[in-house]
Amino acid sequence: MKAACILVGTELLNGAMVDTNSIYMAEELNKVGIELPYKMIVRDIKEEIIDAIQYFHSRVDIIIMSGGLGPTLDDITKDAIADFLGKKLIVDPEELKVLHQKFASRGLPILEMNTKEVEKPEGAISFENSVGMAPAIYIDKIAAFPGVPRELYDMFPKFLSYFIKEKNWKHKIYIKDIITYGIPESVLENHVKDCFQEEGIFYEFLVKNYGILIRMQADAMKKNKVEKIKEKIYNIIGDFIIGEDSVKIEEKIVQYLKEKQWKISLAESCTGGLIADHFVRLAGVSEVFYEGIVSYDNEAKKKRLGVQKQTLDNDGAVSENTAREMLLGLSTEVAISTTGIAGPGGGSNEKPVGLVYIGIRVLDKTYVIKKIFHGNRQQIRQRTVLEALVSLFQILTKGCEM
Amino acid sequence: MKAACILVGTELLNGAMVDTNSIYMAEELNKVGIELPYKMIVRDIKEEIIDAIQYFHSRVDIIIMSGGLGPTLDDITKDAIADFLGKKLIVDPEELKVLHQKFASRGLPILEMNTKEVEKPEGAISFENSVGMAPAIYIDKIAAFPGVPRELYDMFPKFLSYFIKEKNWKHKIYIKDIITYGIPESVLENHVKDCFQEEGIFYEFLVKNYGILIRMQADAMKKNKVEKIKEKIYNIIGDFIIGEDSVKIEEKIVQYLKEKQWKISLAESCTGGLIADHFVRLAGVSEVFYEGIVSYDNEAKKKRLGVQKQTLDNDGAVSENTAREMLLGLSTEVAISTTGIAGPGGGSNEKPVGLVYIGIRVLDKTYVIKKIFHGNRQQIRQRTVLEALVSLFQILTKGCEM
Repeated sequence: MKAACILVGTELLNGAMVDTNSIYMAEELNKVGIELPYKMIVRDIKEEIIDAIQYFHSRVDIIIMSGGLGPTLDDITKDAIADFLGKKLIVDPEELKVLHQKFASRGLPILEMNTKEVEKPEGAISFENSVGMAPAIYIDKIAAFPGVPRELYDMFPKFLSYFIKEKNWKHKIYIKDIITYGIPESVLENHVKDCFQEEGIFYEFLVKNYGILIRMQADAMKKNKVEKIKEKIYNIIGDFIIGEDSVKIEEKIVQYLKEKQWKISLAESCTGGLIADHFVRLAGVSEVFYEGIVSYDNEAKKKRLGVQKQTLDNDGAVSENTAREMLLGLSTEVAISTTGIAGPGGGSNEKPVGLVYIGIRVLDKTYVIKKIFHGNRQQIRQRTVLEALVSLFQILTKGCEM
Repeated sequence: MKAACILVGTELLNGAMVDTNSIYMAEELNKVGIELPYKMIVRDIKEEIIDAIQYFHSRVDIIIMSGGLGPTLDDITKDAIADFLGKKLIVDPEELKVLHQKFASRGLPILEMNTKEVEKPEGAISFENSVGMAPAIYIDKIAAFPGVPRELYDMFPKFLSYFIKEKNWKHKIYIKDIITYGIPESVLENHVKDCFQEEGIFYEFLVKNYGILIRMQADAMKKNKVEKIKEKIYNIIGDFIIGEDSVKIEEKIVQYLKEKQWKISLAESCTGGLIADHFVRLAGVSEVFYEGIVSYDNEAKKKRLGVQKQTLDNDGAVSENTAREMLLGLSTEVAISTTGIAGPGGGSNEKPVGLVYIGIRVLDKTYVIKKIFHGNRQQIRQRTVLEALVSLFQILTKGCEM
């Protein structure tokens, strides 16, 4: 089966907003083995939307639209669908009642224009919006969702399971992602290309900001074969594999710390809270995450962490000794420190922009890693975070740095 | 004039790669007043590419394609263009010579397949690729660029200035964004809709994670009129406006602190480094950013910030008093503290998930804001960050909280 996405919204065309909805939808469709050969982005102009529906209606099995279901004047997606199908727009009294209740429960006044949010082409099925106002609708090969991501995430699975059942669609695909770090794409490909001889397994290399991902994709019946290839890949480049699928390196670290009943603390300078944020994003991290000190100012490094004035004076804030002394101010079993020059200013010949020291302590063993990263301020900070997390994970699991 | 983008590449459809090229192109086209009403993403399949060219060729003045100009088998964009136009593919001997020189100067062997990179439909104009191999081409309302961003950025301006000259196109547009916070979209629209009576000024509301943006866009000749409408909007909803264009609220805070020569410190619990990260992202922030304490564990709240054991025992970590005492551990002129239940666990009837206390101190005046946010863990944390930054900005500039 084939699907097409039509994303409606001028803001997606003028650079004001980056589309993430269609990436989510592509992945969900992919998982159930529905191909997505087309994506089109159009303005909030009825004729252009109808035109796009027309184009895809004969080419695919399902058109998935996102955006333009809201209450304002430029929300005309359902209008366009109704026109295309020659149906009129109706309001289901039950859905209107639910809408009134939603507004009331949030203490908001309902305006006349809000009624539009529950309009739909006659005969359309609705899917309940548990997190917002306008329900998603589905009629005659066309499904329409709000453009607000969390509302889409709420209703897309409901639609998809309905659609699959309706079509009696049983195809499933199996996707395995292997996440590598520290190995260039061409070297990686050279090492593992012989693993990909099996017919019907599609593989690709995806360059992500956290490393290179090897993706294998096949009919779910071939799951075992994919897993066998995975084992082969581990045998060849296991040292460079930091995870699988969407499991993040910080989750693996937290898992490890929980098993050991250890806690972790951070002393961040150039990464300024970014490593802390990676941990605190994870639910239940309080069991292992003790504290993070963003000791940005040199005074804070001295006062909060006990870094010596002499070290700062002689070696500078960006130095191996400072990274090492920052760790001394942290009391937990595991500790990370970062200090570097993220730029764009502040670099010199001796200490260029991108120079970073990462300190890692596990119990009484301390490591300091020196790196020079390229890129802009944000890239240098992100690379530092990744390097710190991967290095810590390597040290925890293998007892040595990479 | 109208343009359409056709992005070629299966990787843009399966979620493996996020398109940033079209955002760049949209902004460049926008600046010179060329509208971009359509974007379409198709696979590396010749018939589907030709089909898409066909669709747009009668609808727009210029089709801009990106992707599929490389040397490998699935690079078939120029093939598709030649087929559509009924032209044959040729190789310009001069361009082949340049290609050979490029390979030689990089010490790379040139393979036969690489010749494909300088193929083009007969009659096409080429634009030199200063950073990579394949030149961009332009023929009969169709321009094609490589998918590699830096190659696109190298050649797109060359093409655009050629195209504008060829068409004798002199139009320019003016865009003004007004950023609002704390006012729902429908209420906002109701308040300001009467401002938008002027012909030829396009306006829209964009829901961003930091608030709602009012965008006005018009011919550059109408700049003064747009600015007048902006003044009107300030008169009506000025209290909800937190910025203009792409200036972020944390930049405005930093600007304010620099003028006052004040410093800021943070004590974050539920936001866990996220506020620190917002500041440290900004270059030159060291002048005003002193430190951030991610006091996640209660022990850390006591030890690092001096929060009283009694307060934690009696009121709990998520309480007005804890937020207030966290501020006491910070020494700078301006301080923010956050403590809340980001979920998904940890909530109770009395203290539900989403309950957040934000402490703000400016010199000797302290404010504590209580909020209950909805959403998942990450959304609750992000809303807390935004609320804290906006509230601080309001307090700094107006001497009171919103």
